[in-house]
Amino acid sequence: MASDSYPFLGQHQSGIVTPAQDRLHFVALTVKTESLAELRSLFEDWTAAAQQLMAGQPVGEEKSLAAPPDDTGEALDLSASHLTLTFGLGRSLFVDSEGKDRFGLADRLPPALEDLPTMSGDMLEAAWTGGDLCIQACADDPQVAVHAIRNLVRIAAGRAVVAWSQLGFGRTSSTSSAQVTPRNLFGFKDGTANLKVEEPELLAKHVWASADNSAGNPAWMEGGSYCATRKIRMLIEPWDRAPLREQENIMGRTKKEGAPLSGGGEFDAPDFEMKGRGGPIIPVDSHVRLMHPAQNEGVQMLRRGYNYTDGSDGLGHLDAGLFFIAYVCDPRTHFVPLLRTMMKSDALSEYLRHVGSAVFAIPPGVSEEGDFIASGLFEGKI
Amino acid sequence: MASDSYPFLGQHQSGIVTPAQDRLHFVALTVKTESLAELRSLFEDWTAAAQQLMAGQPVGEEKSLAAPPDDTGEALDLSASHLTLTFGLGRSLFVDSEGKDRFGLADRLPPALEDLPTMSGDMLEAAWTGGDLCIQACADDPQVAVHAIRNLVRIAAGRAVVAWSQLGFGRTSSTSSAQVTPRNLFGFKDGTANLKVEEPELLAKHVWASADNSAGNPAWMEGGSYCATRKIRMLIEPWDRAPLREQENIMGRTKKEGAPLSGGGEFDAPDFEMKGRGGPIIPVDSHVRLMHPAQNEGVQMLRRGYNYTDGSDGLGHLDAGLFFIAYVCDPRTHFVPLLRTMMKSDALSEYLRHVGSAVFAIPPGVSEEGDFIASGLFEGKI
Repeated sequence: MASDSYPFLGQHQSGIVTPAQDRLHFVALTVKTESLAELRSLFEDWTAAAQQLMAGQPVGEEKSLAAPPDDTGEALDLSASHLTLTFGLGRSLFVDSEGKDRFGLADRLPPALEDLPTMSGDMLEAAWTGGDLCIQACADDPQVAVHAIRNLVRIAAGRAVVAWSQLGFGRTSSTSSAQVTPRNLFGFKDGTANLKVEEPELLAKHVWASADNSAGNPAWMEGGSYCATRKIRMLIEPWDRAPLREQENIMGRTKKEGAPLSGGGEFDAPDFEMKGRGGPIIPVDSHVRLMHPAQNEGVQMLRRGYNYTDGSDGLGHLDAGLFFIAYVCDPRTHFVPLLRTMMKSDALSEYLRHVGSAVFAIPPGVSEEGDFIASGLFEGKI
Repeated sequence: MASDSYPFLGQHQSGIVTPAQDRLHFVALTVKTESLAELRSLFEDWTAAAQQLMAGQPVGEEKSLAAPPDDTGEALDLSASHLTLTFGLGRSLFVDSEGKDRFGLADRLPPALEDLPTMSGDMLEAAWTGGDLCIQACADDPQVAVHAIRNLVRIAAGRAVVAWSQLGFGRTSSTSSAQVTPRNLFGFKDGTANLKVEEPELLAKHVWASADNSAGNPAWMEGGSYCATRKIRMLIEPWDRAPLREQENIMGRTKKEGAPLSGGGEFDAPDFEMKGRGGPIIPVDSHVRLMHPAQNEGVQMLRRGYNYTDGSDGLGHLDAGLFFIAYVCDPRTHFVPLLRTMMKSDALSEYLRHVGSAVFAIPPGVSEEGDFIASGLFEGKI
C-alpha cells in the first residue's frame, strides 16, 4: 500500500472527516438499469475498484494485448495522493418523479432524504442538480481524482451514466485543526469554525446518521451521513468593485486575518453584542452571524467545499464560484434552515447565484473485507 | 522574492521553456477599447502586475477600507508556486474580420501570424476559438494560476474582456530533461521526444522568432515565439473499449513504458523500418511516426499541453481531453503541416474532436526594469 494512501475499510466512508485534500472531482450519475441485481452488482464492483484506487493501484487486473485494459492508465506513474472516495444515493434512486418505487427499495428510503424545498433566489439548472448516485473523489493530485471518477464511471457502463460532474481546484474548508484555513474566491478565509475530525462528540451529534436519533434512519444508514451540494456561482466582478469595508461587513470578518470584526484573532469567538457605529459591529445581515451555531439552535455542518472555475460565462467574465459540500446527520434540521436563512437574509447573497443543488444519503463505511458499500440497503431484498 | 518564484525579467517571456508546471489557467481576451494609448497602457499595467504576481506578492498596493482592494485576496497565504505568465497577441488585434486596421498596427502584423487554414475534421466552436490577446498562467498550485488570471482580467476592465478560458489539471509534456514524462487521458506517456530547455540550439532553430530568419518577423518580435492552441476533446469511452494492441498500434508506443514498438526503452529512437507482421512494426498511420521530425522535414515543436475535464457533455459522458499548446518559431512551417497530417492521416484522429483553435504572437521578454511587454510594437506609433 502506498505511503500516501488512506485505508478503505472503516466504520465511516473516507472523504468525510478525512483532512480535506486540495483537489476534487465530483460526479452525479443517472441509473439506467431497472434491475435490482445489477444495481447491487454496481456497488460490489465499485467497492472492489475503490479499494484498488485508494491504495494507488490500477483497477482490475492485467489483461492480454487482445483486450481493452481494465485501467485507463493516466495515473500509472502517480502515487495514491491521499485519494478518498465517497459514494452516495439520491432520493430519485428510490422513487422517481411520479412517485414510482423504482427498485422495490422505497420502504428503505431514509425520511431525511427529502427533496430540498425551493428557496427564494434559486436559479437552479438541471445540468447541475440532482442525481441518482454520486461519487466524491478528493486527492492531493487532481489527475488522480479524475482518473478515479473516470474509471468508476467506466465500470458503471450499462448500469449508470454521468448526469453532471464538477472539478474543484482548491479546498475552501479545513476538516482538521492541523490544516491551514483556505480562502474562497471572495478572498476570505472560509470554514474557520468548521467541524473538525478532532471533535468526535460533535461529529456524532451533527454529522453521523444513527438509527436511534430523531431522523428515523433505516438500519442500513447507521454510521452513514447526508451530503448536500450547492453549485454557487460567485459574481466576482461586482464583488471586486466593493470597498474593503463593505466586503468585511458582509462577511463579518477581516479579510487579511479572518478575525471577527469584534476583535481578536481568526479563532477567537465573535462577539455579536459588541456595538459599533449605528448598530452591532458584526452586522445583523453578516454571513458569520447568520450562519453561526448560536443563531441556529446550535446546529453545525461539516463543510467540505471547493473553489471552481468553469471557463467563461460567454458574457466577458470568468465563470467561477464555490462548489459547496456539507455533510450532516439530517438535512432537514442541519441544512435546510441554514440555507433558507442564507438565501433570504445574508448580505452575501447579493453576490451569489445558486445554480446547482443535490442531496445524497451516504451509507456507512465498509468495515469488513468481502462486504460492499450500501450492502445493508439490499439485505433481504434480493 | 519567494523561494519558489521565477524571475520576471529575461530575454524571453516565462512559461515557454520553463519546466512545465503541473497546472494551467489559459485565457483569451477580446479587446474593447479602440484607443492605441489604452492598449499600450494595458500592457504597461499587466507588466507591473505580472512582476508582483510572479514574485508571490499581491497585485497593486494596500488601500484604505473605503476602497476596493487592489488584490482579490484568494492567494494571500499561498506561495509564488513557480507561477509563470505568458502574454500573446492574436491576428484579430491587428486587423478585424473585414480587414480593417484596428489600431494602425497592421504594418507591424507578423506575416507568420496567419489564420489557420480550415482542416478536414475541424469541429471548431466559436466559444473556444481565436482571441485578440491571450495570457497563459502556469503554476504548481492551480489557485495561484486562477488568481493571476482573475486579477489580470480585472486590470483589463474597460479595455478587454474574457473571450474564453481553460483550466488544465495535469501537464502532458515535459520541457526539461529533469522532468518525468506525464500521461495524457488516453493513458499514454506524452511528449517523450519534446524539445527541452537543455537544448538551446534546437530552441533557437524551432521555437524563438528572430528578425533574420525566413519568417519575415518584424523587429518587435525578435526573441519572441508563436503559440498555437487546440482544444481537443478526447472520446475516452470508445478509446477505453479498444484492445491494448490497437491502442499501442495507434500511438506507436507501448502503454506502460512508452517505448517505441520497435523496442528499447522510452527514450530510444523509434526504428520506422523494422518489419512486423503484415507491415512495419510501427504502423504507417501511428501517431509517433506521423508526428516524428524524421517525417516532417526535421521540424520540431515545443509542446506544453494540459489534460482538462470540463464536466459532462450532457450525453452521459465526461467532457475531457487535451488542451494542446505548442510554441514554435513559425506556425506556417512548424505547426500547420503537422496539424494537417495529423487530422488527415493519423489513426488517433478517430478518437479526437478538435473543438477550439487559436494562434498568438508571443512578444519577447522584458529585459530591463521599466520596459513593458510588447513595447516594441508601440514604438514610434504613439
